[in-house]
Amino acid sequence: MIVLFTDFGDSGPYLGQMHAVLARKAPDVPVIDLFNDLSPHAVRAAAYLLPAYAQEFPPESVFVCIVDPGVGGPRRAIMLRADDRWYVGPDNGLLQVLAQRAGRTECCEIVWRPATLSASFHGRDLFAPAAAMLARGQRPEARPADLTPPSPPWPDDLAEVLYIDRFGNAITGLRAAELARDARLRIAHEDVSYARTYSEVAPGQVFWYENANGLVEIAANQARASEILKIVVGDVLGVL
Amino acid sequence: MIVLFTDFGDSGPYLGQMHAVLARKAPDVPVIDLFNDLSPHAVRAAAYLLPAYAQEFPPESVFVCIVDPGVGGPRRAIMLRADDRWYVGPDNGLLQVLAQRAGRTECCEIVWRPATLSASFHGRDLFAPAAAMLARGQRPEARPADLTPPSPPWPDDLAEVLYIDRFGNAITGLRAAELARDARLRIAHEDVSYARTYSEVAPGQVFWYENANGLVEIAANQARASEILKIVVGDVLGVL
Amino acid sequence: MIVLFTDFGDSGPYLGQMHAVLARKAPDVPVIDLFNDLSPHAVRAAAYLLPAYAQEFPPESVFVCIVDPGVGGPRRAIMLRADDRWYVGPDNGLLQVLAQRAGRTECCEIVWRPATLSASFHGRDLFAPAAAMLARGQRPEARPADLTPPSPPWPDDLAEVLYIDRFGNAITGLRAAELARDARLRIAHEDVSYARTYSEVAPGQVFWYENANGLVEIAANQARASEILKIVVGDVLGVL
Repeated sequence: MIVLFTDFGDSGPYLGQMHAVLARKAPDVPVIDLFNDLSPHAVRAAAYLLPAYAQEFPPESVFVCIVDPGVGGPRRAIMLRADDRWYVGPDNGLLQVLAQRAGRTECCEIVWRPATLSASFHGRDLFAPAAAMLARGQRPEARPADLTPPSPPWPDDLAEVLYIDRFGNAITGLRAAELARDARLRIAHEDVSYARTYSEVAPGQVFWYENANGLVEIAANQARASEILKIVVGDVLGVL
Repeated sequence: MIVLFTDFGDSGPYLGQMHAVLARKAPDVPVIDLFNDLSPHAVRAAAYLLPAYAQEFPPESVFVCIVDPGVGGPRRAIMLRADDRWYVGPDNGLLQVLAQRAGRTECCEIVWRPATLSASFHGRDLFAPAAAMLARGQRPEARPADLTPPSPPWPDDLAEVLYIDRFGNAITGLRAAELARDARLRIAHEDVSYARTYSEVAPGQVFWYENANGLVEIAANQARASEILKIVVGDVLGVL
Repeated sequence: MIVLFTDFGDSGPYLGQMHAVLARKAPDVPVIDLFNDLSPHAVRAAAYLLPAYAQEFPPESVFVCIVDPGVGGPRRAIMLRADDRWYVGPDNGLLQVLAQRAGRTECCEIVWRPATLSASFHGRDLFAPAAAMLARGQRPEARPADLTPPSPPWPDDLAEVLYIDRFGNAITGLRAAELARDARLRIAHEDVSYARTYSEVAPGQVFWYENANGLVEIAANQARASEILKIVVGDVLGVL
């Protein structure tokens, strides 16, 4: 299974061009569009989403991870093996949180290059073909390399809003398992308490809960928490 | 064929997680993203769209229908057989109009539960696996049950705007076969007459027509009817 | 491989209905959603995008090209063979630029009609089934015909913004191979110089470059060129 995790957007031509390459080079491998509307260029936010959304995928899944504002510049192309899954992507921090939390990891720089490489679309020209090779049990030419760590280092959990979904729910970089259920969260000058799910609070009430991927999420019953509290991506949370 | 009919949105992580489950549990079954930007939480509007868009699908298609503001609460999970197709979804009225219009129906409550069930994403954890079983000719554990009817009862046709499409066309809950061609529709204080298709009226002119799924739709030739008449989802129509 | 190139939008029910037809009529053929958020009704802009985005597809690919404001009216349905690929679509100019630039072309009017043809959704009822036939090596009934040329004729390259992508980049109808690298572009009263890729200019700086499909594109490093210069689709470019 090949899994796309990018900021390419679900519209426009980029995702289709990725699928076309994968359909040709790994014709029998299912391709899943997991998360393709990550905030453009927001490497750190994506880095904290990746491990939460990757964990439910089977061993040998190959993730194509692309939030890559430095495309065409000197940043290296990476392939990372972590907990029996493969990840390909730029060496810009995007795979950092996943690698830190993983049990076993093995990291290489991808040395293989296609015959033609555009300056701006390594997703199509380099990462998709590399992922297709891995999904077919082959390995693109590579050499051992460490991920370049972010400087200054990033925290274990990120107390920020990473994504606002279609329902106006705000997904954060906090793992719910790290938080007591009586913790209250301060966001946008409001305090928010825990509930297990939507129907446990009154319509319109805002609460925080453990979302279906283990992250703290700010939501409201049948209403848009993001509008009620005027939350935007990047807003910082306080834990009380 | 498995068909997704949800309010999950075409972006974000939810649809991809559904596809990942289906790819693993029903690997050789095509999955169609029929309609995934239904108005969030708008159960009744979706209920009137479903039979219009389901009718062209072949026998044994399995529909995963999710507009489910009560997820994680006491509402039951349903599997409905209607006119040789399967439908799984919450028992909140979403399958009501389809069941009413169908010839033969058979309705069960899904008793089967997965080993792990999140509080907020039964689409991924319960309905997708149940659909995969049905698509493979198996049946999740279930017991006979009737759909809970809406109270007060819903009308046969819904004289409301249910969805505004990319072209600014307003899809309504009225079946065109129930309307005379010389009927005029009143919407947003304007009267709108019938035409067969776009090119039969002047550019910019608003008209109603029978859309390709049998519903009354308000459109304009090479222009956005929704902007010309300031139509929004939920607007009520009068039939003159 | 069947490739969709339409203005149907990536949301709503239309694309799913196309996929459902293709899954039934050409079950083993991969279907790629190449570009489905083309500007609604903007035939000429789409005509200049098509050859740039089609060129990377393999021989025998079948393109379903639909920007069709005249659907249901007298315009003919076309199937075009160009450089060993197939294209089906309306005879309204959409295939004109591609045909002009192609080496070998063969053009026919599609005479075949399905048992039931809606007035407004020939994509689902006519073009998708015709594409499925071609992808399976069959030919829908057809007769030789020339494309109806636009009047007045269109230029070789179109010095206009055709599409603004998710990153705020403005894709134009100019082929970069026709432009010297020291050419400057005037757009929205600003002059824009060339760079090879994003990381070669300062953050926030606007530049033009050859995008990964050979078209001139206006972009900015880690910023939205469309907002910095207030570019909208249809804006005209000057070459200095």
